[in-house]
Amino acid sequence: MTDSTDSTEPAVGAPERRPGGRTARVRAQVLDAVRAELAEAGHEGLTVEGVAARAGVHRTTVYRRWRDVGGLLVDVIAAAGEMDWQPPDTGSLRGDLTALNREIQESLVVRPSFAVALMAASFHSEQAARAQTRLWADRYAQCEILVERAVARGELPVRGARGATELDARSLLIAATAPVYHQVVLLRADPDPRLPERAAAAAVLAAAAGAFSVPRTEGA
Amino acid sequence: MTDSTDSTEPAVGAPERRPGGRTARVRAQVLDAVRAELAEAGHEGLTVEGVAARAGVHRTTVYRRWRDVGGLLVDVIAAAGEMDWQPPDTGSLRGDLTALNREIQESLVVRPSFAVALMAASFHSEQAARAQTRLWADRYAQCEILVERAVARGELPVRGARGATELDARSLLIAATAPVYHQVVLLRADPDPRLPERAAAAAVLAAAAGAFSVPRTEGA
Repeated sequence: MTDSTDSTEPAVGAPERRPGGRTARVRAQVLDAVRAELAEAGHEGLTVEGVAARAGVHRTTVYRRWRDVGGLLVDVIAAAGEMDWQPPDTGSLRGDLTALNREIQESLVVRPSFAVALMAASFHSEQAARAQTRLWADRYAQCEILVERAVARGELPVRGARGATELDARSLLIAATAPVYHQVVLLRADPDPRLPERAAAAAVLAAAAGAFSVPRTEGA
Repeated sequence: MTDSTDSTEPAVGAPERRPGGRTARVRAQVLDAVRAELAEAGHEGLTVEGVAARAGVHRTTVYRRWRDVGGLLVDVIAAAGEMDWQPPDTGSLRGDLTALNREIQESLVVRPSFAVALMAASFHSEQAARAQTRLWADRYAQCEILVERAVARGELPVRGARGATELDARSLLIAATAPVYHQVVLLRADPDPRLPERAAAAAVLAAAAGAFSVPRTEGA
């Protein structure tokens, strides 16, 4: 699944010609430049001129295709969604969530952090915020397979027949991952190498105790 | 406990003369103006001139006492820490954490949100970020009493004697509250009125299952 498949509005500047051609090459150069500028100077430092200069393309090319800084932000977030990202598959829910949290923590503590720069940008650009919300929604949807696999392996309680329940996979995933964002991004704590596993383990224990069980919906 | 008691550096512009006097009055007017400007225009819209005009004080007064926008942000955060805030006391850990989460969600979804404006500012001002980190640390420290009371009531497992454990109160509090920030601030989901209670209940279940138990430290 990619970010763009179920998106209702096409990303600004999405290449319309054959992939691998000049259009795709220019887009790759420009988006690389956006990522580098964002990581170095943050959202306030992002300008169409700076991106064009770094990408080595004419600024009218950037204006024509991406229009403005908002268009560049939307497209760089869309490109993150198009990446062939796969959720971890370690054989246990706790292992999967730990691996996911390690990946998240790594993306947040690396300096400069593109992920943190995007979050900062989303406080100031409505366009970037919407694109980012779509990306988050897609990533969490992709991760629901972790919970489905755990249920299939019998790791989590799902009652059958009358009083049937199912797991609210998204709430479980948010419970597992939110502490990592909270500690690193909002509390700005020093990254704790044990946090990814601890947050994962706590969510699994809560899930095993029924914290994310909801009545089964009709037809599910 | 207030934000300033154990702070090693005094807040910029903290009143040095008797409380309730002109100094305190001017500070109150200026900080009210900072909050209003922040909520309306965000961090980028904050200027010493705008704050002075809204507060009805001369801008040299603001420059002399707060120096710049960073100083104003630090002092408005310090003032939040000086508020006589008390953690909830409902008689159960689940009730306390639910009440805490409701208060948090309310502060984040109200428009304009001073809390969200401060978070946005902390991405861009190192001074504001440090002041905010201190405020968060103090608020979580204040809330540890919720966990202590729950242990005293026998709601949570603490093994005695050999193999003694104690609860990592802060990790429990973060697990309970992080999903609310995550959903509202980072995922920008529509506020879910059930989320405060669900996130609280999940953290309590995880705690009851031993998720936040750590070996007791010497002398604790």
